[in-house]
Parts: sequence; structure tokens; C-alpha cells
Amino acid sequence: MNLGGVMPPIATPFQNSKLALDKLRGNFQKWNKTGLSGYLVLGSNGEAVYLNEKEKIKVVEASRESIPGSKTMLVGTGMESTQETIRFTNQVAKMGADCALVVTPSYFKGSMKPQVLYEHFISVADSARMGILVYNVPQYTGINLEPEWVARLSEHPNIIGIKDSSGNIGQLSDIISLSRKGFSVFVGSAPVFFPALCVGAVGGILAVANVTPEECVHIQTLFNQKRLDEAKTMQNQLTPLAKAVTTKHGIPGLKMAMDLAGYFGGAPRLPLKRHGEGVERELRDLLVQLQ
Amino acid sequence: MNLGGVMPPIATPFQNSKLALDKLRGNFQKWNKTGLSGYLVLGSNGEAVYLNEKEKIKVVEASRESIPGSKTMLVGTGMESTQETIRFTNQVAKMGADCALVVTPSYFKGSMKPQVLYEHFISVADSARMGILVYNVPQYTGINLEPEWVARLSEHPNIIGIKDSSGNIGQLSDIISLSRKGFSVFVGSAPVFFPALCVGAVGGILAVANVTPEECVHIQTLFNQKRLDEAKTMQNQLTPLAKAVTTKHGIPGLKMAMDLAGYFGGAPRLPLKRHGEGVERELRDLLVQLQ
Amino acid sequence: MNLGGVMPPIATPFQNSKLALDKLRGNFQKWNKTGLSGYLVLGSNGEAVYLNEKEKIKVVEASRESIPGSKTMLVGTGMESTQETIRFTNQVAKMGADCALVVTPSYFKGSMKPQVLYEHFISVADSARMGILVYNVPQYTGINLEPEWVARLSEHPNIIGIKDSSGNIGQLSDIISLSRKGFSVFVGSAPVFFPALCVGAVGGILAVANVTPEECVHIQTLFNQKRLDEAKTMQNQLTPLAKAVTTKHGIPGLKMAMDLAGYFGGAPRLPLKRHGEGVERELRDLLVQLQ
Amino acid sequence: MNLGGVMPPIATPFQNSKLALDKLRGNFQKWNKTGLSGYLVLGSNGEAVYLNEKEKIKVVEASRESIPGSKTMLVGTGMESTQETIRFTNQVAKMGADCALVVTPSYFKGSMKPQVLYEHFISVADSARMGILVYNVPQYTGINLEPEWVARLSEHPNIIGIKDSSGNIGQLSDIISLSRKGFSVFVGSAPVFFPALCVGAVGGILAVANVTPEECVHIQTLFNQKRLDEAKTMQNQLTPLAKAVTTKHGIPGLKMAMDLAGYFGGAPRLPLKRHGEGVERELRDLLVQLQ
Repeated sequence: MNLGGVMPPIATPFQNSKLALDKLRGNFQKWNKTGLSGYLVLGSNGEAVYLNEKEKIKVVEASRESIPGSKTMLVGTGMESTQETIRFTNQVAKMGADCALVVTPSYFKGSMKPQVLYEHFISVADSARMGILVYNVPQYTGINLEPEWVARLSEHPNIIGIKDSSGNIGQLSDIISLSRKGFSVFVGSAPVFFPALCVGAVGGILAVANVTPEECVHIQTLFNQKRLDEAKTMQNQLTPLAKAVTTKHGIPGLKMAMDLAGYFGGAPRLPLKRHGEGVERELRDLLVQLQ
Repeated sequence: MNLGGVMPPIATPFQNSKLALDKLRGNFQKWNKTGLSGYLVLGSNGEAVYLNEKEKIKVVEASRESIPGSKTMLVGTGMESTQETIRFTNQVAKMGADCALVVTPSYFKGSMKPQVLYEHFISVADSARMGILVYNVPQYTGINLEPEWVARLSEHPNIIGIKDSSGNIGQLSDIISLSRKGFSVFVGSAPVFFPALCVGAVGGILAVANVTPEECVHIQTLFNQKRLDEAKTMQNQLTPLAKAVTTKHGIPGLKMAMDLAGYFGGAPRLPLKRHGEGVERELRDLLVQLQ
Repeated sequence: MNLGGVMPPIATPFQNSKLALDKLRGNFQKWNKTGLSGYLVLGSNGEAVYLNEKEKIKVVEASRESIPGSKTMLVGTGMESTQETIRFTNQVAKMGADCALVVTPSYFKGSMKPQVLYEHFISVADSARMGILVYNVPQYTGINLEPEWVARLSEHPNIIGIKDSSGNIGQLSDIISLSRKGFSVFVGSAPVFFPALCVGAVGGILAVANVTPEECVHIQTLFNQKRLDEAKTMQNQLTPLAKAVTTKHGIPGLKMAMDLAGYFGGAPRLPLKRHGEGVERELRDLLVQLQ
Repeated sequence: MNLGGVMPPIATPFQNSKLALDKLRGNFQKWNKTGLSGYLVLGSNGEAVYLNEKEKIKVVEASRESIPGSKTMLVGTGMESTQETIRFTNQVAKMGADCALVVTPSYFKGSMKPQVLYEHFISVADSARMGILVYNVPQYTGINLEPEWVARLSEHPNIIGIKDSSGNIGQLSDIISLSRKGFSVFVGSAPVFFPALCVGAVGGILAVANVTPEECVHIQTLFNQKRLDEAKTMQNQLTPLAKAVTTKHGIPGLKMAMDLAGYFGGAPRLPLKRHGEGVERELRDLLVQLQ
């Protein structure tokens, strides 16, 4: 498998707080026409923590039907328990996903020493019937996987890459330089997409790509053409919106921006709540400035 | 309900990584003979994050059968989603639990503003068919609920108390002084049990009480008798073991100490692993020093 | 020397940003009539970091003249460099101070390993011509000295105590229980003065004691008389003001509260600035509530 | 003034813990033959916090004599107090420095709100008789100056640039994109020198440039020639040494590496101490690998 490019961690649409799979299919129809290289299903931005397992299965099924074979289907399958992670990963593999994104377990932070995390990923990789990518997202988990340990994991034939959302370019650079050749390193933070490409990332798994996929793809295209100044300028234009739909306004902001950009966003699940008019105006302004 | 005293957040026994409910019943037989005032089922130390829902139900059932009416049965029911928390809380209420412990949702840390958390707890309390206690455990969740907001929550007739595991005695003191009279404030950190009693806590929900329940109860008894120096001395004797079975060696340490003290501890679920001989020696020494 | 009781880290008065020693003498006249057991000169709250060495000497001289022999004169003498700390400590000793408070050096945080800090304090203690107290104040220095290391330092005959301003009662309790008998442990955080006394602190070095010395002393008196509930109530009454003049409004808040309480506070040095009317009203209200 | 390129924050040589200015002159003779664009005197790595003011003056004098007019002489002049910072900055200006590096005051962290820091820098810039650069180094100060505030400061005609040592490339990118054109943004963290150049930094003030100036300069030369892959490779080769002489082994490591590379490093001042043979071997290996 040749991974790379821009993938959105797709939002999960709800209506009256119930899954709205038709809305999800509608979003895919539009996304499929863009230069996105694939999709992350059941990622953090997919509100996976608010879905029970039946709902997760339905989202995977609907996504599998909507994602063409030419695009990667990556699914978030990580749980706290090793055996549950293996079980769910293989269930998703059977449903036709291409690869799985496995987050670092994190609840018992003090016990999640590097060696414990290492063995967790090795166990999952040994048993998984598809390739897995490690998911490092310290801002949610409070756990950071050091580059030396990622490099060790990269030696496993079934651990094919990583999504690093730390936003730390020095760390990303170390991961790339220490891991085996061919290990696919994705950045998970849109405001540093351009510098991530400079240090050798193969692509980005970016929340804002739910909203403005073409702009994200364009940064990588410009970079590949060595048009660095233009890529940097495009990045600077994208950054304010990228921050607004993540750190600043969270998933409610992401979904609102999707609505404004012609996708279905809708309301998140409680305890998250739709933002008010002030945020809507701010997001609309940011979208206008991008055009 | 008149809450107070010492409760262990009970460990969940596994054999070959399967639930071992007979071992749980055996533990209850011994604990029931002590001065423990009740039990927290499905708490952090119960490895609730490693149990699927069927397993959780079984643990609640077995606990309900084993806990006498004279002791409080508190069950951890908090989830990330508000509606799932309500659903599970009421399922547990139907099974005969006395009250529920609801952790702060925390995955989307940036979005979990005080007002969002406040509304989550109010929604759960409005719909729950039993009293709830708020669970504040920043070392696991990365979220801290400030005393001012706890005080506001304490005004709700169905929010009957809090377990604060921050270990911050200043904060505990503020919670007690700002909340309504009769609101039950438990400390969730054994090394500060004695000072927590001094500032007005009604009791402690303490991991080490799985191992040495009588010693924990004795601290509170001495305090109630105004024998402060003896209570302080007892605390100082307990503290090294209390740290060893939490921050230092985690749940694997807790379970190993239970084995050494005559309870069934056994192995935790992966990715957690049983500790080796070095830790066993350390724990045995700490237990010996307590006698 | 028998240390204990309540000492204020005295504020340094300025007029037109010049030292106002007459105002300092005026403050001492009032403080000397209270039950304060001594004074910390050139502490953090004395804006020592804004004084050059000539000014520091003048403040020490004026304080020496104003402090009666019956009260302890403790002077902050810690610097980043070991040799400068020794030099200044001995200069202050010659001027008649009773003992010195030596802060953990902290600029090169990554290099300030426990062993490095340990050797720094041992070197200073070996050469100092008066007893020294260790000053642990992680909120300013970013460095925390663990109880095990404090215990080792307490074995040195010339290291006579510690001011721990971490606000962490568990840590304070460990320091007291691990250090040699007779080692004087002061708490440096007024909102936890009462629980600090419960776990065995000999006294408090408290910013708010600049403003309301008698109330602080009264907490300790009540505690010594085993009137715990009254001591706790007094603490709860003091806490809001204690926070306002430290974490909430900083040194400008402390000085403003001193003005309102009949002492000379005046303006701090730039970049600190006097607060406006809103804070003044808030502080006045807090003072009124205390009476 | 046209700032840019690579500058080392020069180490201050001691012999028997006394200033060794002849050794400093010897170092300058070698550095002056390289492509370094200038020098930072009295930076963090110059152990400025361990020098008294007389010593600082001597170091500035010796540096002024050794630095040719073609290279920038930047001097660290920031202190906690605004008025002392102005006084010392102008003293240094009179001695012929080109510009001053002014660190964020930080002792009273809670009070150092953005507006307070802003006014501090504006006051210094208003009164300084040379241009100033802001110094943002959160790992030492515990304070971070947000890009929005740097942008506001960049509007002042006498605030000509910034050294940002956060290591955060997203932040560096924001500073560059938000500040006025011509504002000189230096990165202060060698492991991210290459990505910093990609996002538009004019150069780097890099500890490791004390040891291997040519390698640092070479990265920028390759970058300017659009030879991105070679620049990235050079960066990856430099990174392990760059980390060893900063975060990993601190100033003692930096000075030891200087000795190994043919400069005078010598011992740091206490409480810092020379490392042992293990570190020496590690540093020698890293230097060998670079050739």
C-alpha cells in the first residue's frame, strides 16, 4: 500500500442526535470529487467516543459503500484494552477497510510507560488482519510516544505508519529520520502541514480537510512542485480557519464550518453543543477570506 | 442517604483475562467483615475502561448480591456522551445500586469548559433515578472542576456529593466551604486522607482500602475521637503503601498487594501487566511494616 | 534557635519607584505590636528581583534596626550561582540576620537535577555563618524539591528548615514525616495554613500576614488549643483574601490591601503596576468581611 | 540593519571559576573565520545569570574588541525590572553593541499577563538607544509570548526582531505571517533550524553554533540554494549533537563539546558541573559522526 496525501478525519452526522447516514453519503459524494487521497473513519473528529459499537459498525458500513477503491479507507479502532482493540480491528478488516488507526491507550497515564505502549502496538500488529498506523495525539491522551519508540515500532512489517498530532515539527522530523524507509508519517495538525511536508511527511490527516479539501490538497501539490513560497502563502491563508475548527471552536466549530461550506455538519452530540451566531459569523468570514 | 466513611474502589478480578466473579465474591466476604462503609464498583481501579458493557453488568450484579444493605453501593457510570451516561446510570439504578459516580467527560479537553461540564452533570442529575456523585480526577482526565462550579452543582437535589482525587487539599477545603451543607465530599487520594478529614471531608474512596481496609478506617476513627497525633502517625505509616499501589505501581501494584494481603488480586488486563519480583518484595515489605 | 509561628514575607515600599525606608519602618512599628513571630526580608513578595544589591543592603539594614531581638529575622539570600549565594548570605549574616532563606536555583531547569540542587544547598550550608532554610516555590521557579531530598538536606546541622510554597499538603506531610526531628517546616501558602498545621508544620510564612497578621496568628493559636472547628472556620474566612493578594492579584494586590488595612503598600516596581478601582473595591470588601 | 544568518549565543569561559577573557578572545579568532553572521553575548548559554554586573561589562568589552564590524553584536540585557533593563541596555549601547536581546520578565509568572509584557517591551524600546529583539524562551521562563502580541510589538520602530526558542514551528510561522514585513525572526532551537527556514525565519541563534558553526551555516546556504533534500539531510545529521549540547547535557555539555571541537569550553560555574567521561565519549562520537 502506498499511503500519502490529504485525508479528512470525517465528521459523523447526526439528526436529533441519531446517526444520519444519508447525510454522510451526501458528504462523501462531494469529497470524492476532490483530490483527497482517502478518509479516516471513526477518528477523534468523528466523535467516535460518543458512538456505541452498533453505531460504529453502521458508520463503517456506510463509509465502505461510499469510498471508491482508488481512495484509502482508514478506520480508527483503538481502545484502552489490547484484546478489545484486536477484536474490533479485525471486525473492521472483515468489513473491507484498508488499514486501522490505533490510538495510544491512555487512561492509566502513569502506567503507560513506553515499553507498555510498545508491547500493546506489537500485540495488535501481530494479530491484525490489516496494516495499522499508530495514532499519537497528546492533546487528547496526555501521552506522547517518543520518536525512538516509533522507530522501533516501524520495524514491524504490519505497522505501516503514524499519524502524529502533537504539532511538534521537531518530533515529526525525528520520527521521519529515525524510522525505517517507507514508513508513512502523516501530520495530524493542519497549521503545520506545510513545514511537515518540508521535513518529509507523506501527507496530512487534517480536520479542516472536511471543510476545504481542495485548499489542503493544493498546499501539497505546490510543495511537490517546489513552489515553496506559494505553498507557504496558501498555508498562512488556511491556518486561521484550521485553528478555528480545532483548538479554538472544537468539533462544534468544525461541523458549523462544514454547513457553511456546503457539506452537512449539523449538531454534535452532548455534552458538545452547537455554537451561536458569533462563531458562525467568524467562521463565515474565515471561509470568505480563503476564496 | 447519609454518606461517609471509607470505601474501596474495588478491583475487578480476572483469570486468564476473563471475569472471575467467584473471586470477587470471595473478596467481598472478607471486606464485609471490616469497618468499610461501602464500595465503589466500576471505578478507575476496577479497570472499568477494560470492560465491555456485558461484563460491567455482570460485575454490578455480583456486587449487588454481595454487598449488604448496611453498606453503600456506589457504581461508576460516567461516559463521554451525556445520553449514554444517563442510559447506563438508570440501568444500574434498576439493578439496585444506591448511587452513581459520574466522571467528568474529558476526551475533547479544549471543549470541556466549566459551563459544558456543568450542563452535562445537570442533565444526568435531572434524568438519573438515583443520586449521583461527581468524580473529579485530573490525573486521569486532564480536566479539573473548580470549587466554584462544584458548589453550583451541589445545589441540585440529586447531586449528593463528590469524589475529588486531585490530591489538592486547598481545593478540597474550598469545595467543602463553598458547597451546600450536607453535600458529601470524599477525598480520592489516600496519602492525604488525614488532612482531608481535618478540612471536613466525610470520608475517603481509597484504592489502598482494597488491601488494608482496617488501617484506613482506623485513621478516621482516631480522627473522630480527636486523637490527632495518633491519626497523623497512622497516616504516615499508611502513606508509603498507599503511594505504591497507585501512582508508583498502578493497578498491577494494587492487585499484587491484594494477593499479598490475603485477597484475590490476580493479573490486570493488557496492556497492563503483572509486576515482577522486585515490586513484590517492595510491597511485601511495606505490608510488613504496617503490622 | 526555636523557629515557628507566623512570619510575613515583608513587602518593600517604594515612592516614585525609589526605596521608601521610612514607610518600611512605619510598617514594622505596627507589625511589631502583633503576635507575628518574625519576618522574612527580601522574599519574593519583597520584590527582591527588582532590587539591585545596594538597595537590598539598605532594606536589610533598616529591617535589622526595626526588628526586635524577640522576633526572628530571616533574609532571602539565594541566587542562581552558588558562590554568589554564599557571598551574599555571609554579608547578610554580618549585618545581624538570624537565618537565611535560600531558594532553589532554577534558570537552567533541565540541569537542576536533585543531586545538583542537593550539592548547591550543602555548599551554601557548609560556608554560611548562620543557619539556612531551603525555599521551595515551584510556581515561581518551575522546580520542585522532592521530600526525599529535603530529608537528606535536613541531616546537615546548618540546614535548619524549609519554606515549602508548593501548596501541596501531601508533600508537606511527607517532608515532615521524613525529615529529622526538629527540622522546621513552614508552609508558604496561606490558603492551606490550617491543614499544614494539622500535618505538623511549625508555622507559616504568609503573604497575607502583611495585611492581617492577627487573623493568621489566631488560626495557629486556635489550632494549638485544639479548637479545630474554630481554626477551620477562621481559615475559611481568611482564604478569599489570601488568594486575592497572591495568585489572583499578585504583589500589586498585596500592596493595595496593605494600604486598605492601614499599612503602607504603595506601588510596585515596573513591569508590575498598581491595580484599578475594581480590584480595590474587591479587596476592601474582602477586608470588611474579615471583621 | 539587515539581520539574519547564524549566530552562536557565546559561552563565557572561566578558569578556576574566574572570567577567562583571553580564552574568549581565542574563541572569537576561530569563530570570526567562519560564516557566522554575528554573536549573541550574555545570552542564556553565556551563563549570564551567574555573572555579576562588573563581569558582564568585562565580557561585553572583550567581545566588542573581538567582533569585526561586518558581524552583528547582539547583547542580552533583559532583567526582571523595567528600569534596570533600560539602564543596562543603554550602558551596553554606549559600549558599541549593535542591538540588544531582551528576555520576557518572568519571576512573577501569574502577573506577567500579555499586556504587562507588552508595556515592558514598549517602555524599553522607547528608551533604548539601539534596536531591541524580543527573547521568548518558555522552557527557561515559563512564559510564552503569543504571536498576536509579538505582531503588535513588531510595529514599534525600535523593536527589530525576535529570538523564539519555543521550538514550536507553528508559532514561529504565525509570528512571521502576522508581524510587519522586515521584522527579523530568529529561531533559537537548532533541531528545528531547517523547518524554521522553510516557514521564513531569517536565521538561527543556536547553541550548537558555538561548536560546529560551519555545519549550521551550511544548512542555511543549502536552503537558500533551494537544495532542500541536502539541507534536510544536513539538519538530521546535526540534530543529535544539537540536542546533546542543550536539552540533554545543558551548558556543561556545550562547553565540553567546545573543548572537543577545538574551542575553549572549560568548566561552568557552580551549581553547574563538568560532566564525566561517559558524556565526553558520547559527545566525541557525535562530533565524529558529523565529519
